[in-house]
This record gives sequence, structure tokens and C-alpha cells, in this order.
Amino acid sequence: MAVTTMSQLFVRTLREDPADAEVPSHRWLVRAGYIRRAAPGIYSWLPLGLKVLAKVEQIVREEMVAIGAQEVRFPALLPREPYETTHRWTEYGPNLFRLKDRKGGDYLLGPTHEEMFTLLVKDLYGSYKDLPLTLFQIQTKYRDEARPRAGLLRGREFIMKDSYTFDMDAEGLQRSYEIHRGAYIKVMDRLGLDYVIVKAMSGAMGGSASEEFLAIAPNGEDTFVRSPGGYAANVEAVTVVPPAPVDASSTPAPLVIHTPGAGTIDTLVTAVNETAPRADRPWTGADTLKNVVFMLQNPDGTKEALIVGLPGDRDVDVKRLEAAIAPAEAVAFGDADFAANPALVKGYIGPAKDGQLMLGKESASGIRYLVDPRVVDGTAWVTGANVADHHVVNLVAGRDFTTDGVIDVAEVRAGDPAPDGSGPLELARGVEMGHIFQLGTKYAEALGLKVLDQNGKLATVTMGSYGIGISRAVAMVAETTCDDRGLAWPRNLAPFDVVVLAAGKEPELAAEAQRIALELSGSGLDVLLDDRKASPGVKFTDAEVLGIPTAVVVGRGLVNGVVEVRDRTAGTKDEVGVDDVVARVIADVRGE
Amino acid sequence: MAVTTMSQLFVRTLREDPADAEVPSHRWLVRAGYIRRAAPGIYSWLPLGLKVLAKVEQIVREEMVAIGAQEVRFPALLPREPYETTHRWTEYGPNLFRLKDRKGGDYLLGPTHEEMFTLLVKDLYGSYKDLPLTLFQIQTKYRDEARPRAGLLRGREFIMKDSYTFDMDAEGLQRSYEIHRGAYIKVMDRLGLDYVIVKAMSGAMGGSASEEFLAIAPNGEDTFVRSPGGYAANVEAVTVVPPAPVDASSTPAPLVIHTPGAGTIDTLVTAVNETAPRADRPWTGADTLKNVVFMLQNPDGTKEALIVGLPGDRDVDVKRLEAAIAPAEAVAFGDADFAANPALVKGYIGPAKDGQLMLGKESASGIRYLVDPRVVDGTAWVTGANVADHHVVNLVAGRDFTTDGVIDVAEVRAGDPAPDGSGPLELARGVEMGHIFQLGTKYAEALGLKVLDQNGKLATVTMGSYGIGISRAVAMVAETTCDDRGLAWPRNLAPFDVVVLAAGKEPELAAEAQRIALELSGSGLDVLLDDRKASPGVKFTDAEVLGIPTAVVVGRGLVNGVVEVRDRTAGTKDEVGVDDVVARVIADVRGE
Repeated sequence: MAVTTMSQLFVRTLREDPADAEVPSHRWLVRAGYIRRAAPGIYSWLPLGLKVLAKVEQIVREEMVAIGAQEVRFPALLPREPYETTHRWTEYGPNLFRLKDRKGGDYLLGPTHEEMFTLLVKDLYGSYKDLPLTLFQIQTKYRDEARPRAGLLRGREFIMKDSYTFDMDAEGLQRSYEIHRGAYIKVMDRLGLDYVIVKAMSGAMGGSASEEFLAIAPNGEDTFVRSPGGYAANVEAVTVVPPAPVDASSTPAPLVIHTPGAGTIDTLVTAVNETAPRADRPWTGADTLKNVVFMLQNPDGTKEALIVGLPGDRDVDVKRLEAAIAPAEAVAFGDADFAANPALVKGYIGPAKDGQLMLGKESASGIRYLVDPRVVDGTAWVTGANVADHHVVNLVAGRDFTTDGVIDVAEVRAGDPAPDGSGPLELARGVEMGHIFQLGTKYAEALGLKVLDQNGKLATVTMGSYGIGISRAVAMVAETTCDDRGLAWPRNLAPFDVVVLAAGKEPELAAEAQRIALELSGSGLDVLLDDRKASPGVKFTDAEVLGIPTAVVVGRGLVNGVVEVRDRTAGTKDEVGVDDVVARVIADVRGE
Repeated sequence: MAVTTMSQLFVRTLREDPADAEVPSHRWLVRAGYIRRAAPGIYSWLPLGLKVLAKVEQIVREEMVAIGAQEVRFPALLPREPYETTHRWTEYGPNLFRLKDRKGGDYLLGPTHEEMFTLLVKDLYGSYKDLPLTLFQIQTKYRDEARPRAGLLRGREFIMKDSYTFDMDAEGLQRSYEIHRGAYIKVMDRLGLDYVIVKAMSGAMGGSASEEFLAIAPNGEDTFVRSPGGYAANVEAVTVVPPAPVDASSTPAPLVIHTPGAGTIDTLVTAVNETAPRADRPWTGADTLKNVVFMLQNPDGTKEALIVGLPGDRDVDVKRLEAAIAPAEAVAFGDADFAANPALVKGYIGPAKDGQLMLGKESASGIRYLVDPRVVDGTAWVTGANVADHHVVNLVAGRDFTTDGVIDVAEVRAGDPAPDGSGPLELARGVEMGHIFQLGTKYAEALGLKVLDQNGKLATVTMGSYGIGISRAVAMVAETTCDDRGLAWPRNLAPFDVVVLAAGKEPELAAEAQRIALELSGSGLDVLLDDRKASPGVKFTDAEVLGIPTAVVVGRGLVNGVVEVRDRTAGTKDEVGVDDVVARVIADVRGE
């Protein structure tokens, strides 16, 4: 491999942070000349960035090939029809880039390719003997994010590996899923990421079981929980275990009380404990039933109101709500909406009034009413009386009101019990690196992917879908390895193994730096030689910004026969005899 | 490398041609399971196709790196602004895929990236010391072709290598251009294509000099010419050398004659030779001046009429016309247009009437009038008299009429002289594989790419732009190597080096086939083992359709210790001792 010289390399480091940089990886990838913004959420890859990207791609490709996956590549520009069939043309809403060709035909830029893979397998295969099958692609994808952010972490054009498995039955899918899960573990390990595998919701993908691989990061967009006993889930997928029903036979009848000025849960609890104290213990915020109104907007533009009832000491978690109601979106329930629903007394909404149901499809309001799993039969609540400045106490679920069902969207708190009994939950943040789904038959049904089974009958194929964000992985590795001086790549992903530089203007230093660079390169290392006529300070700074794992500094020690070997990640500087430096660096690079 | 088994490989060969297949490469790439159509002009790559694509990509990448080009990658989804600045947002007309994002911002799918490269270099570089610079990318491009055809040969989503050079001056550009030209020659040679380098027009790219690399193909879309003396140009770029002016002092005055029924050039020539014979020789079709009216439509929607005058024995070549008037397009000049221009007498249009100019911006019609280069001063013409059923003879250019200039768009014919005097032209057809352009300063000027020169003054950078169609190259190699039995890849591009198959049901045959396959694979060859329980005929047919260069057939000869080695391209079948077969195949593959 030829030595690359800094004077020729297409790179410039920047002294200033880019104005839109929110996270360290974004800041340093731009400042170190790895990427450049072309438009919001859309980036160009410069030579250094492309080298790292190619290494990440290759790791993912190798692990896919290792599990027998075969590589294909679909277009990014896709016709509308298959996505229309599965409803995703509509369900993706504004997240989908849509366009028309010169003949007026509808196209989209593919956000994920379930439909295309399903149709391709339908095109080629027809028998159970052809299965199981695993296909993958590494390809550019598009999503018109409302808030592209954090550089490559949430882009609108990005590179993903997506793969798909095809099996005859659920058992086969489970096997394929486990194999993929194993491959993903290997990929995450090779990327050197600190990650957690969490239970996940499948969102717009449909399907039954799914897990996410989250890289742990304090500024990650995703919140997840884990317990000492090993439970882990993203916050959308956490489930609350409903308590056992309560015997309400001795609970007093509902009592409406006047609660002027009780505009918060705290003031309400105080007021109720004064006016209508509970016999066994004081009322707490967890005994209040807060009823929150949302307007749900479906992808086709239709709207429907929804009231969520939950313990007043918790708020609705918007991400959990969005996951629960997808593909609908929650928009504000405005003054006009309240005006159109006179049964709702803002601030005093409750499920019953004078023994009559006020919330629910069959109630006076006719609005769908779903409640938190903790609202089990027999529990007694303090809630709105549907009259201004009034609440009702001892309103008992199942006795005094009914609901349209359960919705598990209250915020999860540290200390909440894990649903599997494995202890109290801890909350942390991460970035989704991979997502594996048991799709089941959703896409195969919709698009007619059936094969002949062993009895000669047509059977619908069972699918899995699996994604890893390749460009996001580049950012995430940068994010978790960089420091306040720049990038600091792990050796297996670094754009160069080593940078060699002369610290001083003397020609002997430049000559020796070049000699060492050539010798390292001749030994198979990928070498960057900083041959610029720049000060040692500039070269040191740039070497650190670029994040090359090892730097060889040829400086004043040369007269004594020594050069310096710096380790970017460890922060160490060792003096090494000039005759030993090549062997030392090779050993460092190869991990010997 | 592991042996790939046919039973596992994601491929199915088809017995029928796809309905839309116009050329052999399209037919066979689909039938052999290399590609599948996703939409018009948009294809998915199956495993075999992707393997060939990767090999072509790698050849191009190696030759780019060999000339010091650095790889980058731009997005495909691009913002409108830079393309607005260079007018290409409009000039590309309906060939550009345009779309809006969720905020109403205008985007395009990049057809080529001059603007983005120019801006990137402007972003990073600022001094003459940084130049020369060569950058390249291998990336997916989009063009909304009016008539996508021939599979990968003219697609709407396709893969290109595009590269760009940046120099201080024309001399530097010339040097960079020559270096790129050399790299392209190496690429074409490594692809094994029979090609010609022709002078070309630069079309929508702008710029001064350009050449095309055309793969010679009888059903190619591009016509080119070449002379025995080495002249070569595509038909758009051929130039007619104007004859010397003629002394018209003894040419009689114009004479209007009645020519009823002379509706064709032939009948006109006959009529004129009877009515107004020429003194020195008979009139021929080449003496008639045909005036053809076009309506030009500009990308911004405005229209302008144009009359092209050319010798009546030639037609206007639509491709030459389109190249000459780009970015405008020629549309029909309809009856309504004639009605709006009463000065034009359909069928009898001529440049003058009664001593008055009828064609040209300053004439009675006011319509721009451009003529073939052969219409030099002093030449005497037979042409329309602007009166129904009448023509005029001896209308002399420069004496009796003037024009608005020259347009060189007449059809080129075999036997026409090469413009450089190198002999008569021969016409042939080809497919554009590469195009190299000396852009000059067009993009750098428009986007403000200037660097400090040696005197500390800002100087505009001079650019070159160079493209190779990667996906098109896959198709073109298939096109020029396939036969009536299927694909026949050259060894350096084949998806597998060798296919091994057992011709017969006996377990010994399968076992021996597997042993040979493993041994070949162990020697570093990429081996496909046809392990299917299929008839020998099916296996033979598929091996030929897939186009694997070498097939090892383990058949009834095994009892006598021989197997058969078939060469797909040569069509040979050799019996080889079973102990020698591995060495023989390795020698074949390595070209020893």
C-alpha cells in the first residue's frame, strides 16, 4: 500500500465547531474533514470518512455472509404499487420522500425494502425446498425526518444493511431470528460498541416480536430500561404488570366534593385528604385518575379523539403513546375540539357523572377511553367530576365506570418493577444501532408470497426483517471514542493505522519520517505521512483531531537515536529506539 | 472461499425471454437471474449480478486510485440551489427527477455532480499549492429518461463512476485530461470491450473539448464515424469542412419557374433540368436548398422558430440538431404555427422573394435562419420561391440572400470526407461507455471556486469531468460476449471461476463433483457446485445460461478416470484425467 501524504490528502481540519453540531461525533467528524453537510440531514463523505464507512460495511457484510446471507441490491427509487398494497405508502406519512416521474407515475425513495424483497422471492421461488432463505443488501435509504439531527446519527439519506429471512413456519422464523441475533452481537462486538439488547415495539414494520440493539450513550435519543435480573426493553416496549383486582365491597360510594383551586395533582391530593380522607391511608397522587385528551390523526387524514386515563402522579410518555397508536399521530386537542365536545369539562374530566358513563365509545361523550394497566377492577380513584371545580372520590373501576380497554403509555420511572419480576428498573439512554423483527406473515400475505409445502399445498411464507445503520454506526463509534481533542478510532476502523510526522524543520527529521513511513507501509500498514511544512503543534493537533490510533513523532530525540510513539486512545507517549520503532508499531497495530 | 451450491444460490433461470427485452444482454441478464426489473429503467441486482457489478466497480476504482484520484461519496438527494445557480435545475428539463421535502424545499436526484464537487473543493481548498486535485465517486445516479430501454444500457437509476479534476490553468487541465484518458483506456481494456474514442459534443455539461469512449455494437444507440486516417467522432460532433467560396460573377440572375407536382427533391431536380438547365452540368439534389422549419422549446417553456437550410439530398439528423440546440428541444412546427407565420408558404419556403429576404431575423418572416456549412457565398441554389408551385433557380448565397449563420446538423453519410482530410468516413454504431470533458471554468465561475495563485491573486479553477457507466458496463460486457445459449463472461468479470456438476444420478458422480469443487475452492478459486437433483441437460443448459467460463462435468467417463472440462467462450470440451483436472482448471483460470 502506498504511503498517503498529508499534503496530497483531500482533507482540511477546522478550528471551529460547525454551527449545527449538537453532539461530539457530529462536531469532530466535520472538523476532522470526514463528512460535509450537503443539506439538512444529508451528508457527503470525504476520503477519510469513506474509508471508515467501508470498514464498517465490510464488518457487517462479513457477518452476514457468515450466516449464509446472500447479497443483493435493490433500487432506492421505487414504484408506489407494492407500498400501496401494504398501506405503507400512506402509513409512512410525511416521513416518506414521494415524487412523480415525467409520465406522472408515483415513486418513493425507499425507507426500507420489505415489499421489494417479498416480491423478489415470490418472483423466484415456489417450494418449501427453496427455504430457509436469507438475503441482505447494503444500500442508501431515505426518510424525511421532521428533525434531522446530530449529523449522521439521524439523517434523511443514510446507509443501512437490511436483511430478510424467509421460512416456512414460526419455528423456522425463530431459528432464523436467533441466527441473525447472533450475527448482530458479533457486529456490535467488532464495532467495539457498548450496547444493550432490548425488547422493542415493531412500529410501522408490523409483526410480532422484535428487539433493538442500542448503543449506550448519555445523549442518545432512545430511553431504555434494565433490571438487575437482566430484563431490558426500550421505553416503548416496557409493559406494566397489572396489579390483581381489588375487592371493593367495602369501598364507600363515590362522593363528589368541591375542590376550588385544586389545579394540580398536589393541591388536589391535599384538598381531598382534608375534605374526604381515606380510611386506611392518605390519598396520594397515585390514587388520582388523570384523564388526558388527544386528537389522533391517521395517515389518511382522518381524526379521532382519544382519552387516556392514568395515575395522576405520572405523565403520558409521548414516545410510548406514539408507538402505541402508530401509524396514527397524536396532535393537540384544541379549544375548537373542546367546544365540539361539550361533554368534556376541561380540567375536570372523569369517567362518570351522577352514575352515568361520560367517557368511552358507549358513553355520553362517545370518545374512546383507554386506561393505564394499573386501573384494575376494584381500585378506587380521585378523578374529575365533569363539573367545574369539582372532583369525585372513591370512584371505583368496574363498579362505577368501565373503559374501552387498556393503553400502556404512562412514563416509566427508575425504581418501577420489571415486568418479569427481575427487580427495579433503571433508566438509561442509547442510540438504536440495529433492529431485528419477527415480521411473521404480514408482508407475505399482503403481497401473496406463498410456496408449496411438503403436502403440495400453498403456504404463506414467514418473514423476518433486520437492519443495521451503517452510517449511523460510523457516527456512534466516533461518538463513544472521541474526546475533547478529536476523534480516536479503534484500530480496526481507523482510516490509517499510523501517522508519521517530523517535529522540526531539519531535513534529517523529514527524511527519517519518510523512511519510517515507507518501512511501515512496506510491512502492510496503511500509513499517513504528515509531510507538510507546518509547525509541530499544527501536526500534533491535526493528528489528534483525525484520530489516527498511533503517531510516530520524529523530533529532537533523533540525534540520540529515539523517536516517540503516541497512542491516541491510551494517551501514552513512549520513546522508542529508531531501529525498533517499526517493529513496535507493527506490534501495536496487530495487537501483539 | 467456500463452495457455493446451486441448491442454495438465490437464482432461477427463466426459459422465456422477458417481454420487454430489446437486446441480448437484457434478455440474458434477466433470464440468467442476474437482474430483475423493479420499474421501467430501474433494476434490482441479484447475487450473480451484484458479483459482476462489484468486479467492474473494482477495476474502475483501481484505475482511478492508480492516477492518484481520491474517493469520496456525495448524496443522491441534492438541494436545488447549486443546480439553480448553474441553470441546470431548468436546463435538464424533464430528465431530472425533482421532489419536495416535508417543508416544501426543492430537491433533485443527482444526474451528475459537477456542482457538488465544485462546492466541496471551494469549501476545503484555497491555494494553488492544493492543486492539481482529482476526486472520484462510485455512486447511484438518476435520469428520468423519456425512453428507458435495453435493460441496464439506458436506465433511470444507474451506477456511475464520476470524477473531477481541478487545475490552475488550461495546461494543467490538458495534463489531467490526458491522464484520465489513459486510465479510461486501461479500464476499457480490462473490461475486454472493443471500443473507439471519438470526438464528442459536451451537451448539457458545458465546456470545451470532450471525447467519448464508445463500445462498438451493431445495436448501439450512438452513431459514430471514422476514417482510414484515424479520425473518429460521434455523429453529433462531426464537422463539415465548408467548401471555398465560389465566384458567382457569371451566374445568371435568379429565375422563378413554375414547378407543379414537384413535391420531392427528385421530381424537382427533373423539372428544373427541363425548364432551366444549368450551363456547366445538370442540377442535382445537392444543388437544391431545402428549408426545414422547427419549433425550439427552451427548458423554461419559451418557444422560438428556427429554419434550417441544407442541401436537399440530405435530411436533418435529429441527434445532431438536438446537440446543436441543447438545452432547447425541437418540437413539431404545427399547422397553427404555419398559420401564425403567413410569410412561410409550406413546401415552397425559400430565403428570398422578388429580391426581398424572406428568412432570417431581419427578414419578412423574422424567423432565425441557419444554413448548412456547404451553403457558402457564391453557391447557386434551386429553392422555394415562397409562392405555391414555384421554385427559384440560381439563387446565389451572399448575392441574393443572407443568413443568420451556420448550423452543422445535416446527416452524415458514409463516404463523406473526414474534416481533417484523413479520407472518407465510415459509419458505425456504439454505446457510450465513458465520456471525458474539459469543462474549463464554467462551474468554477458560476459557483465561485477561486484559489490564490502564486502572485497572491484569486484565480478561477479549471475543471475536468469524467464519467464511466458502471452498470452499463456490466450490460455491455454481457452484450458483446453472450451468444444464443446465454451469457459468457470473461474470466476477470465472471461471478464464479468454475462450475462443477455431476451428469448422472450415481452417488459416486456427486461425490467426485463435490471433491473436485472443494479442491478447486481450496486452491483459491470461486466455485459453484451444481448439486441439484436435476437432469444433466438442465444442468448443462443452466451452466451455459449463467455464463461461467469453465464447467467441469463429472459423468460416465469417471469409470475410466476422466472428466470433461468445457470452456464456455471457446466452446471446447476436453476429456481430462480426474487427477489432472484441478491443475488444468487452475491453469485455465489463471491464464497459464
